[in-house]
Amino acid sequence: MGDNSLGNKFQITSFGESHGNLVGIILDGIPAGLELNEQFIQEELDKRRPGQSDLTTPREERDEFEIVSGVFNGKTTGAPICMFIRNKDVDSSKYETLKDYLRPAQVDFSAIKKYGGYSDYRGSGRFSGRITAGLVMAGAVAKQILQLKDIRIFAYTKSIGEINDATPYAIDDIEDCMISREKSKVRALNLEISIKMEKVIETVKIEGDSIGGEIKCVAKNIPAGIGGPIFNSLESSISKAIFSIPAIKGIEFGAGFKATRMKGSQHNDPWIVKEGRIKTSKNDSGGIIGGVSIGMPIEFTVAVKPTPTISKAQKTVNMKTMREETIVFSGRHDPCIVPRAVVVVEAMTAIALLDHLLTEGIIPSCL
Amino acid sequence: MGDNSLGNKFQITSFGESHGNLVGIILDGIPAGLELNEQFIQEELDKRRPGQSDLTTPREERDEFEIVSGVFNGKTTGAPICMFIRNKDVDSSKYETLKDYLRPAQVDFSAIKKYGGYSDYRGSGRFSGRITAGLVMAGAVAKQILQLKDIRIFAYTKSIGEINDATPYAIDDIEDCMISREKSKVRALNLEISIKMEKVIETVKIEGDSIGGEIKCVAKNIPAGIGGPIFNSLESSISKAIFSIPAIKGIEFGAGFKATRMKGSQHNDPWIVKEGRIKTSKNDSGGIIGGVSIGMPIEFTVAVKPTPTISKAQKTVNMKTMREETIVFSGRHDPCIVPRAVVVVEAMTAIALLDHLLTEGIIPSCL
Amino acid sequence: MGDNSLGNKFQITSFGESHGNLVGIILDGIPAGLELNEQFIQEELDKRRPGQSDLTTPREERDEFEIVSGVFNGKTTGAPICMFIRNKDVDSSKYETLKDYLRPAQVDFSAIKKYGGYSDYRGSGRFSGRITAGLVMAGAVAKQILQLKDIRIFAYTKSIGEINDATPYAIDDIEDCMISREKSKVRALNLEISIKMEKVIETVKIEGDSIGGEIKCVAKNIPAGIGGPIFNSLESSISKAIFSIPAIKGIEFGAGFKATRMKGSQHNDPWIVKEGRIKTSKNDSGGIIGGVSIGMPIEFTVAVKPTPTISKAQKTVNMKTMREETIVFSGRHDPCIVPRAVVVVEAMTAIALLDHLLTEGIIPSCL
Amino acid sequence: MGDNSLGNKFQITSFGESHGNLVGIILDGIPAGLELNEQFIQEELDKRRPGQSDLTTPREERDEFEIVSGVFNGKTTGAPICMFIRNKDVDSSKYETLKDYLRPAQVDFSAIKKYGGYSDYRGSGRFSGRITAGLVMAGAVAKQILQLKDIRIFAYTKSIGEINDATPYAIDDIEDCMISREKSKVRALNLEISIKMEKVIETVKIEGDSIGGEIKCVAKNIPAGIGGPIFNSLESSISKAIFSIPAIKGIEFGAGFKATRMKGSQHNDPWIVKEGRIKTSKNDSGGIIGGVSIGMPIEFTVAVKPTPTISKAQKTVNMKTMREETIVFSGRHDPCIVPRAVVVVEAMTAIALLDHLLTEGIIPSCL
Repeated sequence: MGDNSLGNKFQITSFGESHGNLVGIILDGIPAGLELNEQFIQEELDKRRPGQSDLTTPREERDEFEIVSGVFNGKTTGAPICMFIRNKDVDSSKYETLKDYLRPAQVDFSAIKKYGGYSDYRGSGRFSGRITAGLVMAGAVAKQILQLKDIRIFAYTKSIGEINDATPYAIDDIEDCMISREKSKVRALNLEISIKMEKVIETVKIEGDSIGGEIKCVAKNIPAGIGGPIFNSLESSISKAIFSIPAIKGIEFGAGFKATRMKGSQHNDPWIVKEGRIKTSKNDSGGIIGGVSIGMPIEFTVAVKPTPTISKAQKTVNMKTMREETIVFSGRHDPCIVPRAVVVVEAMTAIALLDHLLTEGIIPSCL
Repeated sequence: MGDNSLGNKFQITSFGESHGNLVGIILDGIPAGLELNEQFIQEELDKRRPGQSDLTTPREERDEFEIVSGVFNGKTTGAPICMFIRNKDVDSSKYETLKDYLRPAQVDFSAIKKYGGYSDYRGSGRFSGRITAGLVMAGAVAKQILQLKDIRIFAYTKSIGEINDATPYAIDDIEDCMISREKSKVRALNLEISIKMEKVIETVKIEGDSIGGEIKCVAKNIPAGIGGPIFNSLESSISKAIFSIPAIKGIEFGAGFKATRMKGSQHNDPWIVKEGRIKTSKNDSGGIIGGVSIGMPIEFTVAVKPTPTISKAQKTVNMKTMREETIVFSGRHDPCIVPRAVVVVEAMTAIALLDHLLTEGIIPSCL
Repeated sequence: MGDNSLGNKFQITSFGESHGNLVGIILDGIPAGLELNEQFIQEELDKRRPGQSDLTTPREERDEFEIVSGVFNGKTTGAPICMFIRNKDVDSSKYETLKDYLRPAQVDFSAIKKYGGYSDYRGSGRFSGRITAGLVMAGAVAKQILQLKDIRIFAYTKSIGEINDATPYAIDDIEDCMISREKSKVRALNLEISIKMEKVIETVKIEGDSIGGEIKCVAKNIPAGIGGPIFNSLESSISKAIFSIPAIKGIEFGAGFKATRMKGSQHNDPWIVKEGRIKTSKNDSGGIIGGVSIGMPIEFTVAVKPTPTISKAQKTVNMKTMREETIVFSGRHDPCIVPRAVVVVEAMTAIALLDHLLTEGIIPSCL
Repeated sequence: MGDNSLGNKFQITSFGESHGNLVGIILDGIPAGLELNEQFIQEELDKRRPGQSDLTTPREERDEFEIVSGVFNGKTTGAPICMFIRNKDVDSSKYETLKDYLRPAQVDFSAIKKYGGYSDYRGSGRFSGRITAGLVMAGAVAKQILQLKDIRIFAYTKSIGEINDATPYAIDDIEDCMISREKSKVRALNLEISIKMEKVIETVKIEGDSIGGEIKCVAKNIPAGIGGPIFNSLESSISKAIFSIPAIKGIEFGAGFKATRMKGSQHNDPWIVKEGRIKTSKNDSGGIIGGVSIGMPIEFTVAVKPTPTISKAQKTVNMKTMREETIVFSGRHDPCIVPRAVVVVEAMTAIALLDHLLTEGIIPSCL
């Protein structure tokens, strides 16, 4: 399989560049017969869109999408769905002036070593966070299929820097907060905590710096029995999908790293019977045991690193002269990418789970 | 691709069950012409072997392996290499008496939901940690190929419960400690810390309980330019491979979750020139930027949950009666799986990296 | 992998419909650094283009293509290349009036059974021969990479109906005929035979009927050692690629079906030494032994069925009434698809061979 | 995917060598809950077994198989099924004496170019027809699953040299002949024709020569709607699987190469209504239109080349001296491989079709 495709029965193929003509995605394996809600796709894109608040990059993109194949009379046909967004507000000027300098924590060196200097370096090209717009479109379609099985995916900002919302929300509480989440500039669930998080971002923005954070994601109504031992574990599929998002540097399922300090007697989730069905009384497993879903919510948390683009002076190397220098790289950027990444995490989760459900025959290939 | 295979150009296929005839692995894509060091494979298996110390399960398996294909006159031929270990000390008795009860945090429910009650439940069957013996054999061969490029992979026990070795070891220090690591019953690098960790395990063992921990893994001499943006990121491949190991519930690359509390100006690794080559002065990226290796060590840490099998009374459900009961599940088990998992983490890392190096043409398919 | 993708290291993904917005292709894995010859791509498309002679369908499509990603400053970047052709001369009227009738030998029934009636039926949608325009674009890029290794692929019309060019052309003779082939309306090598073939087509065209034929394809300078035993055989890869072309119903390598009537002593190609290199004195193996190339030309012949669309009265079924009726389906069509399919066969061969050469490390992923 | 695996949801992985320890296969994706008929597997192997008649190679192998994983209490568990046959009657002596000479039409040169001289050359190693014993085991299990859907696959010897059984058998007639087929030494349906075929083989055997032939294969009760346009066509999957069999050099579906001489009005199969269901009145399409099954029998014919191993003097090259010489290569061989290949063609067809049916969700992954 090519480097730019992901999935088994549901395969997405990403294409486009940050400052090229467009950013796009092909969805292969979406069941035929889905009445596509295009407005929903746009709403999802709007949650990732730059310029959505004063806490994000000023790059002005409306991110309006086109569907050019795979839909007929408003319904999916079973043929591959190609969708793309044309790039509008492209300012490549600054990439020319400093292109001999390696921007710290940026992909310049990676791209040269990988593609021998032929890659499109403008706006980081293929490595840009802008590529995730395609993922969000794919996720928005995947969510519509999942919804037919009443499966829903919710993510929110759990921490920004040191400000951490440690509340152990029940999944229904998270669902109830989804509208209020959109009132939070940072996509936190608790608006008091949100204000503290916003202040952290405003402060680093003024400093010309950036900050990281955590996103928590949960999936509701995944039936038991999805995934598998060894290589087909749900943790394997989800983590592979999630690490496709630039800036993600960690993932933990259920109790995660906290489990390393727990005893088995604390960590083991007791089995109970609830309304005639087998459940666990708590969910430290994150809903996955032996790589397989057990019918409890899938729960995981991801670590987002601080945006590498900052406007402070940084030490680096001029590749031409091979000399170390201290440079100020200016450029439009997000002081914190977490709020915009929330919907991308949801999208990749929807994509990974839908692939499992289609491949394992839980969702048919024709509605 | 089937559920029990992993990889592109280097594909491994796992088979066998915990209490069946054998546990095996097929390696497809190992370059022809490698003089296979069988003793090294056995040494690696010995590091995972049960019964290697009083801190592990008393199940007595010598784990002697056979190679039945793909090697001719002591060298690999380019044909698939099939290796297996026959199971010897199989005691399935206890699985019969309590088989109506769901063992907490165990795969009983997962297996029933996935395989409809037909799976081999003895010793958890396919879900057993014993399956990782096959992974260790594959890793031991992968390491021999990597060694030809001077690539080496080292892992060690970073924490057991609350005892954490926070020393920021340089990679050469880790390499130097590999022999002393084998003198530590828990595979820690520091023998003083090791004694504290052993005490933690001894305590939970006496309690009939278990404990989790962390394993740190580093890879040396991975050339820059391996991996890719989006779906082919090194983090995606490594995490997919690592989460194939039962009991792993988290992974973080470089600064990982700590990066969520850092500013860009702190987290960004400055580029420097060292001996004429471009490096970074620190390695908070874990050696991966934009999903691509930058020539620095690959560094990550994984979270291992406490062994679910404990001998304390636990609340659970009898599937037949659908009633909740409190049961003591006895059975041979490891009070802490971390020391035995260290070599499995190394193995999966070797497997994932070798696949990248073969697929990307860095290592030829014929030596 | 999704249904609309093909390949390992070089993966193509097809999208679009006959009467939709466009027909497109994504090329993933094309090495970075290729100076792309866009004129050549257009020339290749022109060989497949409808309306190129009075022997083809009158649908008027210029088939002008756009490249919207993966190329920067005229060179490939290593990123996926997305190319498409907008559909212009779309006349879907006739598909509405007779859409309850199953056109004989056409995909109506297949599409309904596969996609539950949701597929785009206009012009056969995804099943249309028009989809092969995307394959030709991919093939045109693949050929440019192959050319760097001096590998060339030539196909020609070997037979139309009973008119068969049985000349055992040497590969260099075929190469020499490539310009004159373009002077033949049917893409035959011998212009006298060409005239006979044209007459056959003109006759069936007047009758409102259609006719089949054979295409022979050869590949020059494929190095020995490509392919593999069992599932990776060159015959497996080439046939899988070739049968992706609608209307192909047979393939034979080297002596093919004639070999079934030969003795081993006749069929076995003697090994010889020629200019210091090991060759065979004839090529009944088609250049492939044990699934692996031996350095001789790859040679195979494919069977193309007569175009199913004809304007004669045909017996069929009205799906609504479930009654058998005799219907005249009119519609623009090719009386013989062979001349336009020649370049498609070349394209799929180039695609299959390039994938082998990239996957097996013969062509690097960065030029 | 590795070179030695095939399939999507149903993946087989082949291993072992002709003169090594064993020949084996792993089946991944066989639904859980199948009561495995081991006797049937042995009966299928017996049809491929060497030494089954005086028309086959005298190599004496009982081909008794072992199942070492994936079956518990007589039923499949959903885990990978590993099966193998130990090699017994291995005589590698002759491969040593003439190993500098390239056997005509044999894999010596291919293997050297592919594996750099490290491959196991004894008995052609991985390239040997003996590898197909693994395919027959896989096919025998696949057939048992298909039988649950009343799907059956039948093949027979259609021609040996010039002796051709051109009878247009109806599929039910073929099914009825399956027992009598086993009474024919060559696996022909008509015993009179069988005798003629046997004579042809006896004659070439006396001459120290060999002969080719054709195998026809049909699949009954494949539901309509399986396969897909472009890369997922049934012809693509079946041909890829079939060309994995050594000695196969051609395949044609339905009318195949004969269709190249037909007009559309002749070739198009009229749609009819039969017992309330839509069928075609003849089957020149081979049951596949647009790459998709239409509910008619799948029909195809394959070309088998004459066995390359003969005992006549042949011209070849000594690789060490690089001189051409005339050599008599003796060795046990089949004068005609067709009779033994019949069950292998059935097996690969069963494997390819089962993969489609599982991947497309027609057969569930748990019975």
